[in-house]
Amino acid sequence: MLFSIERESLLNHLNIIQKGLPLKTPMPILYAIKFEALQDHMILTTSNSDVAIQVVVDDPSLEIKTPGKTAIPGRYLIDIVRKVVSKNIEFALIEQNIMVIRADKSEFKLRLMDVEDYPDIDFMDLNDPLTFDPKALSNVIKETNFATSQNEKRPVLTGVDFKFLEKKLFCVATDSYRLAQKEMAFDLERDPFDLVIPNKSLDELQKILETINSPVELYINPNKVLFKFDNILFQTRLLEGSYPDTMRIIPKSFVVEIPFHKEQLLAAIDRVSLLSPKERETNVNIVKLALKENQVVEISSTNAEIGDASEEIIPSGDVKGPQIKLAFSSKYLKEALKTFHSEEVTISFSGEIKPFIITGKEDPTLLHLILPVRLD
Amino acid sequence: MLFSIERESLLNHLNIIQKGLPLKTPMPILYAIKFEALQDHMILTTSNSDVAIQVVVDDPSLEIKTPGKTAIPGRYLIDIVRKVVSKNIEFALIEQNIMVIRADKSEFKLRLMDVEDYPDIDFMDLNDPLTFDPKALSNVIKETNFATSQNEKRPVLTGVDFKFLEKKLFCVATDSYRLAQKEMAFDLERDPFDLVIPNKSLDELQKILETINSPVELYINPNKVLFKFDNILFQTRLLEGSYPDTMRIIPKSFVVEIPFHKEQLLAAIDRVSLLSPKERETNVNIVKLALKENQVVEISSTNAEIGDASEEIIPSGDVKGPQIKLAFSSKYLKEALKTFHSEEVTISFSGEIKPFIITGKEDPTLLHLILPVRLD
Repeated sequence: MLFSIERESLLNHLNIIQKGLPLKTPMPILYAIKFEALQDHMILTTSNSDVAIQVVVDDPSLEIKTPGKTAIPGRYLIDIVRKVVSKNIEFALIEQNIMVIRADKSEFKLRLMDVEDYPDIDFMDLNDPLTFDPKALSNVIKETNFATSQNEKRPVLTGVDFKFLEKKLFCVATDSYRLAQKEMAFDLERDPFDLVIPNKSLDELQKILETINSPVELYINPNKVLFKFDNILFQTRLLEGSYPDTMRIIPKSFVVEIPFHKEQLLAAIDRVSLLSPKERETNVNIVKLALKENQVVEISSTNAEIGDASEEIIPSGDVKGPQIKLAFSSKYLKEALKTFHSEEVTISFSGEIKPFIITGKEDPTLLHLILPVRLD
Repeated sequence: MLFSIERESLLNHLNIIQKGLPLKTPMPILYAIKFEALQDHMILTTSNSDVAIQVVVDDPSLEIKTPGKTAIPGRYLIDIVRKVVSKNIEFALIEQNIMVIRADKSEFKLRLMDVEDYPDIDFMDLNDPLTFDPKALSNVIKETNFATSQNEKRPVLTGVDFKFLEKKLFCVATDSYRLAQKEMAFDLERDPFDLVIPNKSLDELQKILETINSPVELYINPNKVLFKFDNILFQTRLLEGSYPDTMRIIPKSFVVEIPFHKEQLLAAIDRVSLLSPKERETNVNIVKLALKENQVVEISSTNAEIGDASEEIIPSGDVKGPQIKLAFSSKYLKEALKTFHSEEVTISFSGEIKPFIITGKEDPTLLHLILPVRLD
């Protein structure tokens, strides 16, 4: 095996493929990147318990003198390619399973792993894709994924539900205390599907999408899905179990609606939660919101040990409905607000102990819901 | 107690005074900042087991309506002053030991600690100072402090030795594997002194000095020293025990001298140490340096599990002396190199198992020494 390639091109490919390296695995071979150098192109593969990634390298700078395949320790290889400064890098397999990597005056002799130990990754057949704009898919993930559950009590809630129904894709995440829902319209007929993608897989996918400009094709299989774009295959397992029917918990009618300047509300919540105890159980970091007689909103927090904080906000437009007072996690509201592009958001309440929703004029397909906590 | 002050001015003072807050202390009162509002100025005090800091606030924006003193929880106060956006902040002490802090539409009611519990800090009498330029003192700390010992086996090595002798101040740090020495000339006669300042105190002092432009006065006492600048008193305890006589371990004659382009050497060491095992015992992360026949220098590392790395460097000028080969900690050399302003540095060797020194043309008063390890 003997090949050379431009450093920058290889690094770009490695930055993508590394998202499939495990942090910790009982199968050490998975710490390697599988390299297959064929006549005129090269295939790189990584995999862990959630995802498998394959990148086809057919860069014009790639020169394969002797084809071959091998398993190169991933983190070390990436460190090396990052730190060397030459234009090209040469890889030469020598006896005793050692890869000599030459870049300008630097030479590395890296011990390889046995490529025969690398598990066969069964990438799916590519039939009947659903096609996304990469930035749109990246946004869907950013707008929903943070609302998935971080604990494994109900495993199905640690993923985002992708449900296709009547030309619409609904992407929903909930940890049972708050919910994020994004809708996407597709101008095509296809069979409905309903699948739950693990949040970790989506995190890695989103990071790759940030660097991509070409359309993304989604291929579906009963127990896994594959995203294909550029020369990249990104396959992830799905979560088992049926996702709760979240449509019915989203209130449809509201008694109070308050429009806010988003940044102003965010800053107020941020300040008022300064005195709340931090980093304890999910529901401890609580702020109160009260719509007062004069249509002024008061955000406040109470902490017997440290002290109290309060701040008044003037709503950014007409308020609908009577006085109301409720309490909720400041973290949930801050995270939800940050996903909106709209400068103005509306919080709609259907009662003091009922879930409230946040919407934005310029984000008509996005909805966040938060469950309040009972006031003492 | 009732006063108001410009937010930005208060924040600048708090950013300095906070360096004296303890991370963890068995005396909870020390988590507070002591505020003493007098007729026309205010005194802020913090202290922990290493340092005590006092700042006099006499900003023109300070308006003291009712003098008084109190102890305000430091971290919460700083968070609040950082996050509010108003021009001015008002502080009002109300019943039950509560401080009301008002900034624009925000209001905080912070529970206070009992100021009577705050220990009396005995700041030293101010006699016979040694005066420093603040940037020069900041540089001395950056050039030496990193070489102090990080463990408490020999407590005196966890500080920097400040030794004044015949119009010269020698600042020396060593962890017994490497040493940093900086010399400063003073055009004045004074009694010699020899004192060891804890590395943590110097870290905090250095951060404050970065923001200061006025001269720094050093006052000395048998068991503590005080730095005075602007309206700030920064007092630190000293380490007990006598500092080793480091002068005699610095070699004076050399068999080999090699000039390097500093950045080139740094980058090579960085790359070659990529495959060295990381973060283990001090001496494990080892690279080798060999001066070869053709006056080329080879930097290399060997790692039975991962692989080997090597790189050739052409010295930046004439090499003095015969071939030599030795091994040392890459971290020590990298840290030493980074302190030099010079683009060219010279490494001078007096033997394969003797300490070698690093010097730079544009840093005539700076010297680093590293003890090599035995080659297998």
